[in-house]
Amino acid sequence: MTSPVSLPEGQEWIVEAQGCDPLRLASAATMQQVFERIISDLKLHPVGAPLWHTFPEPGGVTGLVMLAESHLTVHTFPEYGSACFNLFCCTPRAPWPWREALAELLGAESVQVRHVIRAYAGASVGQGASA
Amino acid sequence: MTSPVSLPEGQEWIVEAQGCDPLRLASAATMQQVFERIISDLKLHPVGAPLWHTFPEPGGVTGLVMLAESHLTVHTFPEYGSACFNLFCCTPRAPWPWREALAELLGAESVQVRHVIRAYAGASVGQGASA
Repeated sequence: MTSPVSLPEGQEWIVEAQGCDPLRLASAATMQQVFERIISDLKLHPVGAPLWHTFPEPGGVTGLVMLAESHLTVHTFPEYGSACFNLFCCTPRAPWPWREALAELLGAESVQVRHVIRAYAGASVGQGASA
Repeated sequence: MTSPVSLPEGQEWIVEAQGCDPLRLASAATMQQVFERIISDLKLHPVGAPLWHTFPEPGGVTGLVMLAESHLTVHTFPEYGSACFNLFCCTPRAPWPWREALAELLGAESVQVRHVIRAYAGASVGQGASA
């Protein structure tokens, strides 16, 4: 077998933001602004309109947007001051400054970012998978 | 501080299926059947209609569905015989039999499942995060 050095692979960022402003987490408009910033900064390409839903009190918001590059999702938990993002890109992308940007946009006090390789072209997913 | 034993936490399954039938991977109808099976088996609750998109040749399919429990997504790569799923549940759920079911539904020869804790209630995401 030849070396699989040129195999494409996807990347996913799994992000938990905590200590956020609950009012901003309960606003689909604010969360849409976060999506727009990520999409603009990373030059992503939405496919169709995003889906947004605001749940009953405490008013968590869910957003999903399909991308030519894969997808971006968020779930917010105003009662815990937290938000969980996924950004999946099947082509290489520079990291987004999650910590700095979510501090600015949501008032996040701490942000945990995990990076996961999505080996859709067949390389082992056991390598570099946990982070 | 008291012990955080009762803090709720989300769970995410990150799944790569390889060696699948390319024709089934290129069919949004087939992938919708996979979604329906997962949703039915796990008693999940879709919020609104799913989003489906079929890309130009080689005809990969993307599907996203918002759930009361969080979300379910898939991206298929017929050219590689592979599919990448995410299932995020903010409440406890039994594992789905990914390997057996995707072998049956897509002809998958190998399925890698990673389980990730989504600590939206504030527990450390550093623990039990990689799998």
